[in-house]
Amino acid sequence: MYQIGIDIGGTNTLIGIVDDNGAIVRTRSMLTQAGRPQDDIIADMASAIGTLLKEVGIGREEVEAVGVGVPGAVDSCSGVVVGAYNLQWRNVPLKDEMEKILQRPVYVENGANVAAIAELMFGVFKGCHNALLLTLATGLGSALIINGKLYRGSHNVGNEAGHMTLVEDGLQCTCGNKGCMEMYVTATALVREGRKAVIEQPMSMISSMTGGNFSLVTAKLVMDCAKKHDLVAYGIFRQYVHALGSSIASICNMLDPDIIAIGGGVSKSGEFLLKPLREDVSKKLFFKNVPPPRIEIAAMGNEAGVIGAAKLCKMQ
Amino acid sequence: MYQIGIDIGGTNTLIGIVDDNGAIVRTRSMLTQAGRPQDDIIADMASAIGTLLKEVGIGREEVEAVGVGVPGAVDSCSGVVVGAYNLQWRNVPLKDEMEKILQRPVYVENGANVAAIAELMFGVFKGCHNALLLTLATGLGSALIINGKLYRGSHNVGNEAGHMTLVEDGLQCTCGNKGCMEMYVTATALVREGRKAVIEQPMSMISSMTGGNFSLVTAKLVMDCAKKHDLVAYGIFRQYVHALGSSIASICNMLDPDIIAIGGGVSKSGEFLLKPLREDVSKKLFFKNVPPPRIEIAAMGNEAGVIGAAKLCKMQ
Repeated sequence: MYQIGIDIGGTNTLIGIVDDNGAIVRTRSMLTQAGRPQDDIIADMASAIGTLLKEVGIGREEVEAVGVGVPGAVDSCSGVVVGAYNLQWRNVPLKDEMEKILQRPVYVENGANVAAIAELMFGVFKGCHNALLLTLATGLGSALIINGKLYRGSHNVGNEAGHMTLVEDGLQCTCGNKGCMEMYVTATALVREGRKAVIEQPMSMISSMTGGNFSLVTAKLVMDCAKKHDLVAYGIFRQYVHALGSSIASICNMLDPDIIAIGGGVSKSGEFLLKPLREDVSKKLFFKNVPPPRIEIAAMGNEAGVIGAAKLCKMQ
Repeated sequence: MYQIGIDIGGTNTLIGIVDDNGAIVRTRSMLTQAGRPQDDIIADMASAIGTLLKEVGIGREEVEAVGVGVPGAVDSCSGVVVGAYNLQWRNVPLKDEMEKILQRPVYVENGANVAAIAELMFGVFKGCHNALLLTLATGLGSALIINGKLYRGSHNVGNEAGHMTLVEDGLQCTCGNKGCMEMYVTATALVREGRKAVIEQPMSMISSMTGGNFSLVTAKLVMDCAKKHDLVAYGIFRQYVHALGSSIASICNMLDPDIIAIGGGVSKSGEFLLKPLREDVSKKLFFKNVPPPRIEIAAMGNEAGVIGAAKLCKMQ
């Protein structure tokens, strides 16, 4: 049998057919075009599934189930998307609407949660009891494995580590609070500080690489300049690692997991990020005479969302 | 049958005989005299148990088990106290040593965890899936119930919510880090700010109530002055609630529990604390269209430690 996984993002939606071993048979990407009526997005996803199945010659009866990862809060029992700000969805009965069209069982889950499921089944969380996934991208996604199972919280709205306070009365966050972790440890934070550097530090490598045009700053550019020992970029990077280390140590002091996996665009910097991060976290752990949790790059990459969503039917 | 619970504190140790319904038959308090050799403390506890049993006419064979709550990190499988700073204990095989003397099964657990067990079996956590206990005293104790069970973490060293960062690069904490929650939300924080007021705000009620002697400031005094509408004390209280609200909202955004229970000395202010606290937490929750977690005063009071410790044998 096969399962179909859908990873809805604010910009792109990735749809894939996955086999019983967790291998991707084929994927197809579509523009989400967030903001348009939900029925249009649902119809486009259904049609993409039809195209995919035809392309690989798999019949609908060979599809065990469809799973969808949504960037927002999901009641995974009812399959209702309670709120997904990027999509402008609120109380969307996604499971029911998709089952009507597809005539297959549909499972719906938060996007970070499906990535954690992929790591648990096939990636760095295999065999772990307690694990934390942080995806560092435009926003901060987080998911928890507790006692070997996905942890959803009491109202299906946990796992918003991005909105834990890191700096009381710090930077204004889009959620209305101040000083949320998300303001300091995402790619967006690197871009913000990189842009500041273009304006305030015209001699920096970030400034020269962008010709002084701050709109050209990306998180990757800041990281690349830091790797090349540009002092300004390295300062931004160290401050970033400091904030990320504090965030992770905070969660570890509370939850004492086996492992923290870092995903998302920022994680592509690999050991360059992990080395100082591990040092910072170790320094900040309350108990210093027990082994610190492992900190690793998430293994499942861009396809974590599709694979995890496809395997939702195995987690019920 | 009966169980014996021991609640070791930095100053006092409370020992109690508990019946099968969780009712305390009799307790006895002793000075811990932290810092003296562990064998002396263990011998004193064993002797107090002997006295207690004699006083109520219960035979040793009627004692099902002995449970001990320790203010520190405990490996609850081996019964070894990994580290208890207040007691100056490190790697103390408490279970083995006490079993040798008492000839009864002994269970050892972190002190905040045993209080959470008492709340789960007989108090405000009854029937809850996910719950957080915060005890606000000299330090900040915390314990988690996850999926209806005590959560211990992967290395038995979780539940140190007090050492989550609330203010990046904030006040220096005794643990070596800066800006830990413990620096802002404990009775100690209220005392610190109250003392500052005695010096800096001589017209405040805190100053007049202590005759300008800052060593007379207690957390209760600051709370009492705030209740009497003294502006300086109320300002300290509001700032305190603000920090506590941020701390709780942070944990809720991550863990989405059913309930948070507040214990410890500060919790005696009851609704005066709870009302503004609930408002602050609700404002800071990321998802505003789901019911907020309940925030209540812990129900088991000073005997939570003894009752929870006594019932450790039921949680294995």
